[in-house]
Amino acid sequence: MKTRRTIRAYSDQIVENSLLNELLTTACRASNTGNMQAYSIIETRDPNQKNALAPLHFNQSQITQASVVLTFCADFNRFGKWCSFRKADPGYANLQALTYSSIDTVILAQAFCDAAEAKGLGICYLGTTTYNALQICEVLELPKLVLPIVTVTVGYPTSTTEPLTNRLPLDGIVHHETYQDYNREDIDKIYAETEALPENKHFVEINNKETLAQIFTDIRYTKKDNEYFSKTFLNAVCQQGFHIS
Amino acid sequence: MKTRRTIRAYSDQIVENSLLNELLTTACRASNTGNMQAYSIIETRDPNQKNALAPLHFNQSQITQASVVLTFCADFNRFGKWCSFRKADPGYANLQALTYSSIDTVILAQAFCDAAEAKGLGICYLGTTTYNALQICEVLELPKLVLPIVTVTVGYPTSTTEPLTNRLPLDGIVHHETYQDYNREDIDKIYAETEALPENKHFVEINNKETLAQIFTDIRYTKKDNEYFSKTFLNAVCQQGFHIS
Repeated sequence: MKTRRTIRAYSDQIVENSLLNELLTTACRASNTGNMQAYSIIETRDPNQKNALAPLHFNQSQITQASVVLTFCADFNRFGKWCSFRKADPGYANLQALTYSSIDTVILAQAFCDAAEAKGLGICYLGTTTYNALQICEVLELPKLVLPIVTVTVGYPTSTTEPLTNRLPLDGIVHHETYQDYNREDIDKIYAETEALPENKHFVEINNKETLAQIFTDIRYTKKDNEYFSKTFLNAVCQQGFHIS
Repeated sequence: MKTRRTIRAYSDQIVENSLLNELLTTACRASNTGNMQAYSIIETRDPNQKNALAPLHFNQSQITQASVVLTFCADFNRFGKWCSFRKADPGYANLQALTYSSIDTVILAQAFCDAAEAKGLGICYLGTTTYNALQICEVLELPKLVLPIVTVTVGYPTSTTEPLTNRLPLDGIVHHETYQDYNREDIDKIYAETEALPENKHFVEINNKETLAQIFTDIRYTKKDNEYFSKTFLNAVCQQGFHIS
């Protein structure tokens, strides 16, 4: 885990169903709320389905290149059906149920990733899942009370020798007892290494920006995009039947 | 990972800071959106702070008994400050930014749990974090744009010999290519083992219920509670400065 890296380029070797099922079974041992297991996993191997998903993930090449694409979904449809068939009145079409089923879904996904990497597989999370959730629902034919949360591409790595991406110093992330808010000096110290990296300096230069932070706010994760994709996600949540307020 | 179990009873042995930091450093290697690391971890060791948190987690005994309590928080305060100090205009006070920082927070938490269990520690997730998020913000002094998502108690297990809790059959959770909705027969099959467990039959009996599903809908995860804690969570989200619609 200390030297893991995201893998976006995969060899042609297929991830066998037996291995995938073993890893998913292992992942299901992870914690979940009340043992309700309010999640589902959609496994995509069909090239047509990969092609249908690709544009919804902004055509990141790992979607079509990976042996398997897994879309991890919060799912209160199955549990709700069980309740209805058992003279019980389900009350899970709300924000809190969506929140804990989403948390459980991500716990499941990460437990899968840790297990998969331990077996030599490479994974890549696609953060685009909540951007285009409603279109993903259509492609995967998700019924009400099922919402895609994260997508993971899985395959055998072609290479595991790229340098590790940097991380902020741990003491910039951990707080003892209470949150110690950051002043300018703290921020300078925490981001010093990141800002000094040659590749980051290069990004700033080729984009004609003054600072690395502007790469995020002006190009990669802009307010405009975030606000637009807040609307699309809220729309997906509501369309899938979860009542938010 | 295949035989892991949630650990709620801990020995007196302290989880050393050096080990905890090593595990958290490892966990930070997990994937995160755009390498923004929009999360913080609040480490609670002080008995007074544990006592303050305990009622917010409905006095589950692991809070006060565990060597360390970790509250994993979505955090766009630090990143936003960095932007502001670098002539960049942060746009993260919205649903989409909260969503991906929350996903990253849970990925971090689960990577920590997998690493911790590999070192012989026991962990327990407290799903109550999003129920009483606003009061947890107060105890941990979380500023705007910081929201607690999951809490994990950590310690050395007193015992690891309890039987594993059951899980639904994997083919009841995995769908191939598209979601195959469940009919009554599917549901009967998926839940058969769970419903047949002696302890579950016992629960149904002592609570004077007709079905196991009613234990969930009438007692453990009721519509009334879910709707109440949807309101408290939405309130916490808004109070912490995230605009939802």
